Amino acid sequence: MPNRPTILFAAKAERWTQYEGPLKAALAHAGLGDADLTTEAAATDVDYIVYAPNSGLSDFTPFTRLKAVLNLWAGVEDVVDNPTLTVPLARMVDSGLTEGMVEWVTGHVLRHHLGMDTHIHGQDGLWRPESVPPLARDRQVAILGLGELGTACAKALVALNFKVSGWSRSPKDIEGVSCYHGADGLDEVLRASDITVLLLPKTSATENTLDARRFALMKKDAVIINPGRGPLIDDDALLAALDQGQIKHATLDVFRVEPLPEDHPYWSHPKVTVTPHIASATRTETASAVIAQNIQRGEAGEAFLHLVDRKAGY
Amino acid sequence: MPNRPTILFAAKAERWTQYEGPLKAALAHAGLGDADLTTEAAATDVDYIVYAPNSGLSDFTPFTRLKAVLNLWAGVEDVVDNPTLTVPLARMVDSGLTEGMVEWVTGHVLRHHLGMDTHIHGQDGLWRPESVPPLARDRQVAILGLGELGTACAKALVALNFKVSGWSRSPKDIEGVSCYHGADGLDEVLRASDITVLLLPKTSATENTLDARRFALMKKDAVIINPGRGPLIDDDALLAALDQGQIKHATLDVFRVEPLPEDHPYWSHPKVTVTPHIASATRTETASAVIAQNIQRGEAGEAFLHLVDRKAGY
Repeated sequence: MPNRPTILFAAKAERWTQYEGPLKAALAHAGLGDADLTTEAAATDVDYIVYAPNSGLSDFTPFTRLKAVLNLWAGVEDVVDNPTLTVPLARMVDSGLTEGMVEWVTGHVLRHHLGMDTHIHGQDGLWRPESVPPLARDRQVAILGLGELGTACAKALVALNFKVSGWSRSPKDIEGVSCYHGADGLDEVLRASDITVLLLPKTSATENTLDARRFALMKKDAVIINPGRGPLIDDDALLAALDQGQIKHATLDVFRVEPLPEDHPYWSHPKVTVTPHIASATRTETASAVIAQNIQRGEAGEAFLHLVDRKAGY
Repeated sequence: MPNRPTILFAAKAERWTQYEGPLKAALAHAGLGDADLTTEAAATDVDYIVYAPNSGLSDFTPFTRLKAVLNLWAGVEDVVDNPTLTVPLARMVDSGLTEGMVEWVTGHVLRHHLGMDTHIHGQDGLWRPESVPPLARDRQVAILGLGELGTACAKALVALNFKVSGWSRSPKDIEGVSCYHGADGLDEVLRASDITVLLLPKTSATENTLDARRFALMKKDAVIINPGRGPLIDDDALLAALDQGQIKHATLDVFRVEPLPEDHPYWSHPKVTVTPHIASATRTETASAVIAQNIQRGEAGEAFLHLVDRKAGY
């Protein structure tokens, strides 16, 4: 049989506009230049699906010769529990996505560490030499979630001399990072941290990881940074903790409903910075190379990279 | 002769309050616990002067047995040309100072790279997903001045994947950094850079390094960050370049006159962020250890560290 796999691109139309060129180039570069990359195909002809969970495609039953579903994004919460999906599911692990996340997280950690907002807002003619910040080596940053993204962020912050602790479901070992796991470990990490970054996956176990009880045990004037998933935070509890002066500031990139509705209290709250889910975007060129590499491996009979643990949910 | 050097602390009174404890501890730690650390001594008894250039002491002639002057700060422009100073002059090279500078520079480079101000200022309820920034690997940062501080900042930015070029008076070689020198090299670096950081020393040769001609050859929408010395920039030329839309933003930590006068146009300019000379502060504990180490070396007949090249001016 000639090596001509059929690859269904199942995502919204604007994605096809972005990806058609880079994906074709990446497939050609991987020796798959004659693959049939298409947005429409008979289900029984499809070998691979390049998949966006919001594409509308949710019944995988008709795809009888399907070898794998290759997710366009890192998050798989909207497909991982789909009972009709019985073939391997790969997450997107895009070097551009990781780099972007490291830059966004490092930037916002430094912003809060240095107290930049005072100077960005406060050009009032008053010289305040007492506003010298402490050194990073005296600042405790916690990263919740030590997957690809959390680990990369933790390492970048260690390189800048921050005291970094990390928490994850299962035990991890990262040089320079104090790693914790389990519910008790989470409380311990939160009690000590000045700046907490949320990079946990969205699962039923991680919902409301930061709730009223946990905000209460954090240091007064702690800062929250959430580039992970909206439901990791109990929004009402966060707003209350900000209003009570327990939490100093929250910088939030992800929300339960996106776009964040115009009348959501986060927009107008003086202690909240909203960014529009930009902390980390999949870059078409690097992402296309990852997809092409996985199809190449599938065609060669090799194991797929970045497989999702369906039971764990990520 | 017993090893009991007399160390004159010549700085303003508030510095003595800060330094007396840490310096005594550092001297004891260096085996110099019986040194005579004092703010008043007969000039002919003094072996070392721990020196702040704004102390009022400017005639070193009476100090006939002086072995060295140990500057409390990195900048020596107010003492380096003093003809009465004929003994070795050491700059402060404080690890805390370097760390603080790296944190401030990295933070403000990331702030401009990520376009943070839009989100910090613009909580207007409008979701702007198109504001995804480029990756650092597509952003050119120039560091002018590759001494202790510039080199450390360049390395931190390389570690974050920025494309980093550097410029210095004499040729340098730093891994991952495109190093230039000479007047032509400076123009070349400025033409290509998106974000330019000034960390040159203040000498007659570096005054107005950024003037109208150089602003004009920079990229439109370039960003200037100055944690170095105020006179490196021609202020009128910068204000004109900002008003013409040639330069996008300037974040300035140092000024020709400090505190920056309340009516200076920088304070109210929407494209300027003023910070009050906080980019890097000498930390009393780490600085005291450096001074004690140099006195220890002097007493042992070893060469002093961090000596100033009096001819070059730094």
